[in-house]
Amino acid sequence: MANEKVKLHGFWVSPFANRVKWALKLKGIEYEYMEEDVWNKSNLLIQLNPVYKKVPVLVHNGKVILESFLILEYIDETWNQNPLLLPQDPSQRALTRFWAKFAEEKIFEAAFNALCSHGDEQKKAVQLTMEAMEKIEGELKGKQQFFGGESIGYLDIILGWISYMLPVFEEVGSVQILDPVKFPATIAWSNRFLNHPVIKDTLPPKEKMLVYFQERRHIISCANLGWIKF
Amino acid sequence: MANEKVKLHGFWVSPFANRVKWALKLKGIEYEYMEEDVWNKSNLLIQLNPVYKKVPVLVHNGKVILESFLILEYIDETWNQNPLLLPQDPSQRALTRFWAKFAEEKIFEAAFNALCSHGDEQKKAVQLTMEAMEKIEGELKGKQQFFGGESIGYLDIILGWISYMLPVFEEVGSVQILDPVKFPATIAWSNRFLNHPVIKDTLPPKEKMLVYFQERRHIISCANLGWIKF
Repeated sequence: MANEKVKLHGFWVSPFANRVKWALKLKGIEYEYMEEDVWNKSNLLIQLNPVYKKVPVLVHNGKVILESFLILEYIDETWNQNPLLLPQDPSQRALTRFWAKFAEEKIFEAAFNALCSHGDEQKKAVQLTMEAMEKIEGELKGKQQFFGGESIGYLDIILGWISYMLPVFEEVGSVQILDPVKFPATIAWSNRFLNHPVIKDTLPPKEKMLVYFQERRHIISCANLGWIKF
Repeated sequence: MANEKVKLHGFWVSPFANRVKWALKLKGIEYEYMEEDVWNKSNLLIQLNPVYKKVPVLVHNGKVILESFLILEYIDETWNQNPLLLPQDPSQRALTRFWAKFAEEKIFEAAFNALCSHGDEQKKAVQLTMEAMEKIEGELKGKQQFFGGESIGYLDIILGWISYMLPVFEEVGSVQILDPVKFPATIAWSNRFLNHPVIKDTLPPKEKMLVYFQERRHIISCANLGWIKF
């Protein structure tokens, strides 16, 4: 589509903004990127997303689309060229959305708590993360490529943070979550995901992430920084 | 579609199961209803939804679909006859999904806390509910019928509990939330919704709800009964 104006407001380390970058790049959609400082929000960001004041925000020909899950659906519905992010069969779509929601509510939140908590609270958070990850491991078992088949799809994008950000959480929090004995299929999927040319080129630098999350862990507690406040 | 086998597992007072009933009835889809006792879960329910063990569960020709939001999308995609629940335009779909998610996370949860808490905690919950409802009031202002236009759609279904269950929460919790000065458009929408023939015929009896929630409020605290545990 010519004369499309697509602009993404993101924050370099936001896994939610990264999802949108990946989807746009996988579909070959050109876009302008605007870096926002989520710790000192611009008036424009507040105006675009007055309810949550968060990234990512996608602006497409003047239309404002919010929330990474919903932006992915919007991108798939608007640019319905390959690769399709969601399966076409309604029951497969429902299942994909089910695991995406599960992963967000049960894995991401618990893993973020494992990053920012200490002592017994941290042990509990690690345990919850691993319990939830067992379900995903079960879904990945036997898969040769990605959740959706040969190409990266919706659920791969939603879970993509596991491949590059969870190892940072583990290092900063001094915990192990990605146990190779427990999660061989997840680790293999994670490596395939990281090696995809689009993903490889769109990752925040690891050293910069380590510094960022070390700072977060030291200056703030879980209670003060909800996982959604990227 | 002939020879369709549609079965809904619900619980009489679950607002989530009610959404599915409404969607099926609005589309004119015949279904079998199976009442589950969520306080003494059947093996079948646990087998159908091993992750959450919750209602609603829709079983369509052997395919299991979970979670009310996702079941509504499934129904709209599978039986794509009128009334369509979601708008057709991708940006309008994204906006509808955005408000649905907002309403679930911000209004339902806060209102449920207002039901089951006491003292200052309850005051805070009432305030949070009303703050979130102001956004919905803004969306409804000027609308003559429903969120989606002339017929009941996705967002009306998601928010439908406000029309019949919120007044029960108010009565049991001895609080006022549906202030007619603050929420005239919401109250007007609520009355239109309740008067729709499909909705009118598919509501749990008010007296039975009052007894149920009075009991819940007395025997359990908010901490023990998350709002999702219907």
